[in-house]
Amino acid sequence: MKKYAIGIDVGGRSVKFGLFDKDGKLFDKSNIKTRTENNGSKILDDTYQHILEILEKHDLTVNDLYGVGIGVPGPVLNQSTIKTAVNLGWGEINISQYLESKLDTKVLVANDANVAALGESWMGVAQGLDNIVMLTLGTGLGGAVIVNGQIVSGRAGAGGEIGHMPILEKGLSKKCNCGKDTCFELVASASGIENIANEILFESDQDSVLRNIDTVLAKDIFEALKEGDLLSDKIVDIYSNHLARGIAILSAILDPDMIVIGGGVSNAGQTLLERIKDKYKIHALNAVSDLDIEIATLGNDAGIYGAAKLVL
Amino acid sequence: MKKYAIGIDVGGRSVKFGLFDKDGKLFDKSNIKTRTENNGSKILDDTYQHILEILEKHDLTVNDLYGVGIGVPGPVLNQSTIKTAVNLGWGEINISQYLESKLDTKVLVANDANVAALGESWMGVAQGLDNIVMLTLGTGLGGAVIVNGQIVSGRAGAGGEIGHMPILEKGLSKKCNCGKDTCFELVASASGIENIANEILFESDQDSVLRNIDTVLAKDIFEALKEGDLLSDKIVDIYSNHLARGIAILSAILDPDMIVIGGGVSNAGQTLLERIKDKYKIHALNAVSDLDIEIATLGNDAGIYGAAKLVL
Repeated sequence: MKKYAIGIDVGGRSVKFGLFDKDGKLFDKSNIKTRTENNGSKILDDTYQHILEILEKHDLTVNDLYGVGIGVPGPVLNQSTIKTAVNLGWGEINISQYLESKLDTKVLVANDANVAALGESWMGVAQGLDNIVMLTLGTGLGGAVIVNGQIVSGRAGAGGEIGHMPILEKGLSKKCNCGKDTCFELVASASGIENIANEILFESDQDSVLRNIDTVLAKDIFEALKEGDLLSDKIVDIYSNHLARGIAILSAILDPDMIVIGGGVSNAGQTLLERIKDKYKIHALNAVSDLDIEIATLGNDAGIYGAAKLVL
Repeated sequence: MKKYAIGIDVGGRSVKFGLFDKDGKLFDKSNIKTRTENNGSKILDDTYQHILEILEKHDLTVNDLYGVGIGVPGPVLNQSTIKTAVNLGWGEINISQYLESKLDTKVLVANDANVAALGESWMGVAQGLDNIVMLTLGTGLGGAVIVNGQIVSGRAGAGGEIGHMPILEKGLSKKCNCGKDTCFELVASASGIENIANEILFESDQDSVLRNIDTVLAKDIFEALKEGDLLSDKIVDIYSNHLARGIAILSAILDPDMIVIGGGVSNAGQTLLERIKDKYKIHALNAVSDLDIEIATLGNDAGIYGAAKLVL
């Protein structure tokens, strides 16, 4: 009898697996190394083998599964085909077809930022909310839009590419990975706050503990802020303002139930959240100025939760 | 037998009515004056009376109707309640409740910009497309987002308030009706291009036919452009650039099937469209650079089409 789903999150370093029931209870969590050599040609077979191991460990067969959901780091079409995944060495692959031919169960695929958002709306901070936007603030800025409980993946699989909203009027000297110079990601990701810090440290003569650090990372800035460093305060202020304006753009378009902030930068927690909320009120339309902005709660597990939800 | 739907578009000057079958055939079109006096207290009753007249004229009863759909100029909750409509003098009114108590048929309500988009996706330029964004470029900038064939109305009914995306980094001296000074509407509506024109005319000494006009309107600028006026060329260039950046923001978030441009400014037609498309390619993420941007085709009838579609 169908009772379980396996959620898989394929990352550049490891492939994470979770065995869930339809109520979102996590029975088993495991991971394997991502073998990116030879254009990642072993990854899907490794994944298949590990699915068999999970089933065996729990005395299950594919008949016990609603299916397998998979999050992958790239644009996905028709919940089956990844167009390209630079981090894995992959070109276009129909993942559903490959795994369904071996497993005889439904296999659905989605972008990793999108499944993380689906995870948060299923069992995380946005539990029960059908309309959310998630921003994953890491080295890059991953985004995801969920409307009526469904991921907005778009015509070319580029839905939720929020990091590439051209929110700057004038291009920066630093270019985004996408080749443009006005992207939200350039000022609102972890690299974004690091860029802002470097600029401020260069332009100003003000004393700061950051000047004792060779390569200033996002976490250093938030740590210095906690210690009362005034220059860090200024950096976080500029950063929060960019982030808040991007969120105000999103809320004018979608008026979602919640904005969820995940990724490494979200470890700054309430300190960051309060700043963003203050700045957000300056930029937002009155009707949406009470928007709920929250830090994600599932952390690195959001992906396996959301991937499982794809097939439930 | 249910066979028809009535679509109604409540505007500040007139209330438009259309009688449709479920295939989108328009059997009858009519309108009545909008009586805005006494806080618009007569509008809904006038509307009710005119519905009865339409039914009588076509030998129909409410039993022949799938229902009545209504587009109104304000935010709408639960497809029934308008929160406020400044142009009509209305505060919060549950329109569905009021009309259903008199008509004994389903009455669904939505924002006017949203129903126009629904109309275009049903029988207009975006026919058959389930994921579109519509920009209505008039005195203001109305917006609408349709995802999976459904209007995104949002938590507070502010979904699709695209005119209020804060896309400018620095505020303008001129304020938007919403009270902010960084709104998309300030640079991308008909008033937007007029603002840009006034600024350029003031800043530059360049000769232009626009200097012979007391109050420069959007249509004057596009007319002058056709005649080869170089300053108008510069104005349209700046305007198209703002509009294209806004569209690139939308496509990064939603990756829709089509962007539909309606409203008075869209009368500039292909001249404007080509400019926008050229500028769009500069701002857009590669994956969505071939986005389909089109001029709306239903004109002032988009609202009655979309309103009817609400109940079909």
